[in-house]
Amino acid sequence: MQVTRGQISLFLCLLSCASSLGTRYTPDWASLDARPIPEWYDEVKFGIFVHWGVFSVPAFGSEWFWWYWKTALKPEYILFMVKNYPPGFSYTDFAPDFHAQFFDPDEWADIFEASGAKYVVLTSKHHEGFTNWGSPTSWNWNSVDNGPHRDLVGDLGAAIRKRSLHYGLYHSLYEWFNPIYLSDKQSGFKTQEFVEKKAMPELYDLVNRYKPDLIWSDGDWEAPDTYWNSTGFLAWLYNDSPVKDVVVTNDRWGLGCYCKHGGYYNCADKYTPGELPDHKWEKCQSVDTISWGYRRSMKLSELMDLPSIIKDMVKVVALGGNYLLNVGPTSDGMIAPVFEERLRGIGAWLKVNGEAIYATKPWRVQAENATVPVWYTSKSSTVYAIFTSNPMQNSFKLLTPKTSYNTVVTLLGNPEPLKWAPLQTSGLIVLLPDLPFTPADAWTLKLDEVA
Amino acid sequence: MQVTRGQISLFLCLLSCASSLGTRYTPDWASLDARPIPEWYDEVKFGIFVHWGVFSVPAFGSEWFWWYWKTALKPEYILFMVKNYPPGFSYTDFAPDFHAQFFDPDEWADIFEASGAKYVVLTSKHHEGFTNWGSPTSWNWNSVDNGPHRDLVGDLGAAIRKRSLHYGLYHSLYEWFNPIYLSDKQSGFKTQEFVEKKAMPELYDLVNRYKPDLIWSDGDWEAPDTYWNSTGFLAWLYNDSPVKDVVVTNDRWGLGCYCKHGGYYNCADKYTPGELPDHKWEKCQSVDTISWGYRRSMKLSELMDLPSIIKDMVKVVALGGNYLLNVGPTSDGMIAPVFEERLRGIGAWLKVNGEAIYATKPWRVQAENATVPVWYTSKSSTVYAIFTSNPMQNSFKLLTPKTSYNTVVTLLGNPEPLKWAPLQTSGLIVLLPDLPFTPADAWTLKLDEVA
Amino acid sequence: MQVTRGQISLFLCLLSCASSLGTRYTPDWASLDARPIPEWYDEVKFGIFVHWGVFSVPAFGSEWFWWYWKTALKPEYILFMVKNYPPGFSYTDFAPDFHAQFFDPDEWADIFEASGAKYVVLTSKHHEGFTNWGSPTSWNWNSVDNGPHRDLVGDLGAAIRKRSLHYGLYHSLYEWFNPIYLSDKQSGFKTQEFVEKKAMPELYDLVNRYKPDLIWSDGDWEAPDTYWNSTGFLAWLYNDSPVKDVVVTNDRWGLGCYCKHGGYYNCADKYTPGELPDHKWEKCQSVDTISWGYRRSMKLSELMDLPSIIKDMVKVVALGGNYLLNVGPTSDGMIAPVFEERLRGIGAWLKVNGEAIYATKPWRVQAENATVPVWYTSKSSTVYAIFTSNPMQNSFKLLTPKTSYNTVVTLLGNPEPLKWAPLQTSGLIVLLPDLPFTPADAWTLKLDEVA
Amino acid sequence: MQVTRGQISLFLCLLSCASSLGTRYTPDWASLDARPIPEWYDEVKFGIFVHWGVFSVPAFGSEWFWWYWKTALKPEYILFMVKNYPPGFSYTDFAPDFHAQFFDPDEWADIFEASGAKYVVLTSKHHEGFTNWGSPTSWNWNSVDNGPHRDLVGDLGAAIRKRSLHYGLYHSLYEWFNPIYLSDKQSGFKTQEFVEKKAMPELYDLVNRYKPDLIWSDGDWEAPDTYWNSTGFLAWLYNDSPVKDVVVTNDRWGLGCYCKHGGYYNCADKYTPGELPDHKWEKCQSVDTISWGYRRSMKLSELMDLPSIIKDMVKVVALGGNYLLNVGPTSDGMIAPVFEERLRGIGAWLKVNGEAIYATKPWRVQAENATVPVWYTSKSSTVYAIFTSNPMQNSFKLLTPKTSYNTVVTLLGNPEPLKWAPLQTSGLIVLLPDLPFTPADAWTLKLDEVA
Repeated sequence: MQVTRGQISLFLCLLSCASSLGTRYTPDWASLDARPIPEWYDEVKFGIFVHWGVFSVPAFGSEWFWWYWKTALKPEYILFMVKNYPPGFSYTDFAPDFHAQFFDPDEWADIFEASGAKYVVLTSKHHEGFTNWGSPTSWNWNSVDNGPHRDLVGDLGAAIRKRSLHYGLYHSLYEWFNPIYLSDKQSGFKTQEFVEKKAMPELYDLVNRYKPDLIWSDGDWEAPDTYWNSTGFLAWLYNDSPVKDVVVTNDRWGLGCYCKHGGYYNCADKYTPGELPDHKWEKCQSVDTISWGYRRSMKLSELMDLPSIIKDMVKVVALGGNYLLNVGPTSDGMIAPVFEERLRGIGAWLKVNGEAIYATKPWRVQAENATVPVWYTSKSSTVYAIFTSNPMQNSFKLLTPKTSYNTVVTLLGNPEPLKWAPLQTSGLIVLLPDLPFTPADAWTLKLDEVA
Repeated sequence: MQVTRGQISLFLCLLSCASSLGTRYTPDWASLDARPIPEWYDEVKFGIFVHWGVFSVPAFGSEWFWWYWKTALKPEYILFMVKNYPPGFSYTDFAPDFHAQFFDPDEWADIFEASGAKYVVLTSKHHEGFTNWGSPTSWNWNSVDNGPHRDLVGDLGAAIRKRSLHYGLYHSLYEWFNPIYLSDKQSGFKTQEFVEKKAMPELYDLVNRYKPDLIWSDGDWEAPDTYWNSTGFLAWLYNDSPVKDVVVTNDRWGLGCYCKHGGYYNCADKYTPGELPDHKWEKCQSVDTISWGYRRSMKLSELMDLPSIIKDMVKVVALGGNYLLNVGPTSDGMIAPVFEERLRGIGAWLKVNGEAIYATKPWRVQAENATVPVWYTSKSSTVYAIFTSNPMQNSFKLLTPKTSYNTVVTLLGNPEPLKWAPLQTSGLIVLLPDLPFTPADAWTLKLDEVA
Repeated sequence: MQVTRGQISLFLCLLSCASSLGTRYTPDWASLDARPIPEWYDEVKFGIFVHWGVFSVPAFGSEWFWWYWKTALKPEYILFMVKNYPPGFSYTDFAPDFHAQFFDPDEWADIFEASGAKYVVLTSKHHEGFTNWGSPTSWNWNSVDNGPHRDLVGDLGAAIRKRSLHYGLYHSLYEWFNPIYLSDKQSGFKTQEFVEKKAMPELYDLVNRYKPDLIWSDGDWEAPDTYWNSTGFLAWLYNDSPVKDVVVTNDRWGLGCYCKHGGYYNCADKYTPGELPDHKWEKCQSVDTISWGYRRSMKLSELMDLPSIIKDMVKVVALGGNYLLNVGPTSDGMIAPVFEERLRGIGAWLKVNGEAIYATKPWRVQAENATVPVWYTSKSSTVYAIFTSNPMQNSFKLLTPKTSYNTVVTLLGNPEPLKWAPLQTSGLIVLLPDLPFTPADAWTLKLDEVA
Repeated sequence: MQVTRGQISLFLCLLSCASSLGTRYTPDWASLDARPIPEWYDEVKFGIFVHWGVFSVPAFGSEWFWWYWKTALKPEYILFMVKNYPPGFSYTDFAPDFHAQFFDPDEWADIFEASGAKYVVLTSKHHEGFTNWGSPTSWNWNSVDNGPHRDLVGDLGAAIRKRSLHYGLYHSLYEWFNPIYLSDKQSGFKTQEFVEKKAMPELYDLVNRYKPDLIWSDGDWEAPDTYWNSTGFLAWLYNDSPVKDVVVTNDRWGLGCYCKHGGYYNCADKYTPGELPDHKWEKCQSVDTISWGYRRSMKLSELMDLPSIIKDMVKVVALGGNYLLNVGPTSDGMIAPVFEERLRGIGAWLKVNGEAIYATKPWRVQAENATVPVWYTSKSSTVYAIFTSNPMQNSFKLLTPKTSYNTVVTLLGNPEPLKWAPLQTSGLIVLLPDLPFTPADAWTLKLDEVA
């Protein structure tokens, strides 16, 4: 009996396109965790994270300003307020100064596109609870009723999508000071009023209004996923939402979930695994090493320079991760020039070296250090060896790749194939040309037909 | 068989003290309307109404500022904003300037007490939705999180009660711009999310926290009482709440309710019936004839003077009503001296004439005008004839009272009984002494033993 | 030889109209003090004083706010700032909030006119140095460059003059914190830079621009008149200025001047002499007994009531003085209703009793107390006996007037002449009618043809 | 006759140290222009210009904000105000927001020192008239009375001098909107009140208080130097001031002065001469090509990158000039990281190449272009050939230097002398090593013993 082409498609689809064909996810981790992560996500590798909110107004210390000031009682925050504001000034009093008067979503999107990033994740609502869209359940504490008087989530989304970038939304489940949340918390999370009245309505609203390609969940850790109704939401998201086929999620869906359940894994902030994990992951990192939100008092020494960003990104991609790099815009709505410079610098490097990043897979070996540190990525029989410091010599030894007669070695950005010689057992020595200047301080050897 | 005293008490109680004995109100108007209004209310006659909120910050035009500006689009409000505030300034931006820095509840209570008022009704939440207490369902839009950073409802309540005045709370059911309310409204009030999440939780919270003696409901008119769950709330209030035996309510519980259901009747704002109604009622009136909230630009000619207030109060009491006189405090927390002067003026008049007001009942006739306009009140066989203009002559004719040999006539504030002579059929002529000076321009003839 | 009429006029003029005919004042007190005070001033009797400036913004404590806060270091001022403003908030930071957005000079002038006042004196510049007009030597610290962005001195002046009231300008010679003044002061007033660069240029500018009928000088007391160049200014003012024939001045022109040199005497603030002085004087008094500038936290008990104002004015006029009553407008530009009420109350009283005040002269006796306290004023053979409390009896005894057959006694406001009988030696007994009600609690007996 | 050592000193001194020995400058250009510029100035070559003032608060468009808004009526400024501020908001209202709360003079001085600059010039007062020190003649319009409440000129000066950098002060003679200046201007500069009361007192005050090494005069162009009393001031400055021996000035001292009189020449802003001038000059340039003051909305593309700064500086030094590079701090008191990065980048380049800049003299030829553009500087028989683009080849031909047997060629930053060969007549070919990476994109060939 012959199997027709159509039958094969059907069969393949049964394996992979559950939702479109009617195989539905059930609201439990076993089912939800089995959902394959939509392919676009692994291919894009590099995204921009944007932390913007009322915290951008004091723009001091960290986007955790409110918490550090009022709960952690950190002296530098208390002193900052005492020195610069009248007594009785409350965090909500910052909102009127969130003007965003220079916010031009197209300029942001231009910069993000120029960075080579393929997705952008905006904080739709951080732990402060201020929503960057006109959430009906966050009356008078959102960007349409207050401050910018503008749908920040929608406006940025439109610009991002004009440029064929993917658009993701960060969403904090908990809200530090929301009294309804605090009341649930006091009950030991036996009541779920906050989830029913605030967290879930807003998540559904976000998905239905903005159709995000990615949900970057956060603020989950104080309560189990059963409190948050996370599996219920995800089942809806995967089965019935307008983004069911495309949406990617992370792993912050309740106490104990991270690094274990959900879509890709973030694990902790800025986490990088020691070796190749068996599950798709993402490292989020911030150019300002001290804060995700904008700080008016930041100094150059506190910021990542371009080489360290590139090094970080290369390592992450070699280890199978995505790299989500954060910049915090000002309350005026600007991306600070120093951030713009970093982003354009990454883009310049990716213009030459991007083929070693985008749509690559981890190789059988992730790194070696025979000459200088090298990170490997691959695309079928092509292997990329990215080195993130100048070897300061002409000969470059790689111990891991197994060459063949067909092997061709090139330096990305250099037109001519390079001379090379195989080493015993495995490995090769490459004769480097003069390395082209790059402020990124990283270059890629492309090895075609190696194993 | 003898009936014991105890048995009689029990029997009487069965007739009248339903709630304390277990006779419970059912959530329907037939049952609720049958509840007798607690006696204190009819006895006190005179109360102070206090409109205070974020509207006290612009303090322009009216406490309906937000609505006139954004919905009615009244040109003077639009121009006021255009001339004095930056574009994009929103109503919520006024909240940080609601400082209440001079607010001393004891001073307010002193003034209110000095006015002779026996109850005080504060706006716990006006149509703007800003709660003057830390409502957990009004996060970041209340007087504890914002502006005053203080429990205004609680702080004033404590001072009021120290002086044995009754404490009432005004509460607006609807909130002009609350998106959840607007969404219910758009559904033709088929959904009740707002009632469940906001209106009812706040009413219950108010009652449980502050144990008000009076609930002055408002903002009901756009939706039927079935939407508001008013009867459910009232049944709880009368049966099970901590104030079930003492609490008084008004009649604004849903479209079509006013002047028909609930406790006493307000009917329309500033309404006075043409003749003696058969149901307890209250007239609310504002010293500033143009606004209930404070206005920075008020002029003397727009304010009631003392004689017109006294005239108004006397008429209301004669017609069986209570008189609730409003003053709007400043956003700084002050009762303007001109209001203080009115209130102390009323108090001075009541010190002399109060026995013709407090705890009186309407008489068989409410008014006559044989000499100058006279309003009658009564206490069993004593009748009070209050005249609110100077007759400018010595002889004062009253046509209605029927005198007897025992009749004694005095002018309140004057030690000696007055000479008088009966008229034919009914009525009498009184020989007035020199009238004592009073800026209130009103005096009382007390007629003992008349019919 | 016959003397012509013209010759007589000339002769008389040589005695009295020095300036117009060329007799010039020399810059010394002997000459300046000899100038007769223009007649209008003694006739008007009653004026309004208006303290308005940046101090109206904090509107706390007193118009001496800056000084009490920063120099006297009064705890209540320091605490007010600490509690309500951020550290580093300076007095100059109040200026942007001096909006005067409701300032309608015609409304003010209407109220002032209704009060019966015949002159209005505005603070053109108080000790804070902020000028209420666009002084070129007070750049960025004046009402045109800052706050109201308006010529307050000019705008009020125009409205005042439309109503034929006289317009006077208060001007502070010294400025508490002007560094140039402080530097002169440190030199023991040997340098005069401040006088040359600031004080005198502004005084000349005021006179030339606004042609004030009165200069109310102040802030003179730290330095002698030789420092201030006062005599030089006054000589110019009396000889050559555009107001030389009409202008009136007071006595604050340098240490030791007050009560001794200049035009009329103020002596100390709120000063009243014990008996009739031999020099024209003026009492300045404030409705708010605690402050000349507006205070947001004023209470009724701190304000003068109408009877005490009338009592005060009557005494002052009887003693030959003028009465300058102060109200402090709000920074919004309003006369508070309680002040408006006082002013209109005075006007109502003056409507009836004004003939006993305006254009009167002190009588040979100023006061007596046979019945209740009485103050006397006079116009040739007419004597006014003003009593400022209700005698509570019909007969009114006056011991001082000497009656004749032609003597006629009336109560101002009462159409009919009153019955009276002479007493032995001097004096009379008057049979009072019922006193008309007046919240001012003061009445006038007019005695024609008495001595 | 023997000449003693002392006599020689004396003789030399007569030639050069006029002021210290009693030869005095007269207040005319012939005398003043003859004063030699103190030597330190030519040696330092590179300085930092700092534009800071009230204009840093709107931080929009340019430090000419006030003028563009109110006089030039540029639409983008008018619109910016209309969109973001209330009507009646004046420029002076920005001053309270000049907080400078993060201003740490030592951090600034560290960054400036790290840039390799040897002098720093701060705007003590720009055309807005706001003084960054407590000028007694600028009461309430200076950084001590207002905004920062701090002596910015003094505080920065102290930090600068701790690091042995020279400290200069920018001072604007005119003030756009000072009414006293405008009045002089209206008189056709026949009156000099502004000069006497404001401009000169402040210049003298600056010199006496802060003892600046450099006066960067500006704002002179509307009036001739005779109006400004410039020669009088300079004569005092050179003869009697506390900085007479060290102070350097520029050429903006009155209409027609620039490029002609005074100390070194700035000529126009950002001016570079076409060939070697015969008078010491300075180019001032701003990292932000659009503004000297901070702009909140600046974008990367509007800023000079490091290579263009270095190129510019090298050209200026080769042509005998000094290079004064401007950064505008924020109103918060921060040097934006992107500026910090530029400054530290210059410093890194100067660390290697500084000997080709500091204390050099222009060579007999300034530039050539045989290989890539080369700029020459020199120190006696050493010549520096600085090339500001990568030649992309090993051999580097220079046509101008005349080599000898002793000639040694090195690349700064490279330890080994380079191989080279003479060309016919003159010139040489150098064999370049691999050029070390530098983001500045500029390198220096040092030629010892050439002519």
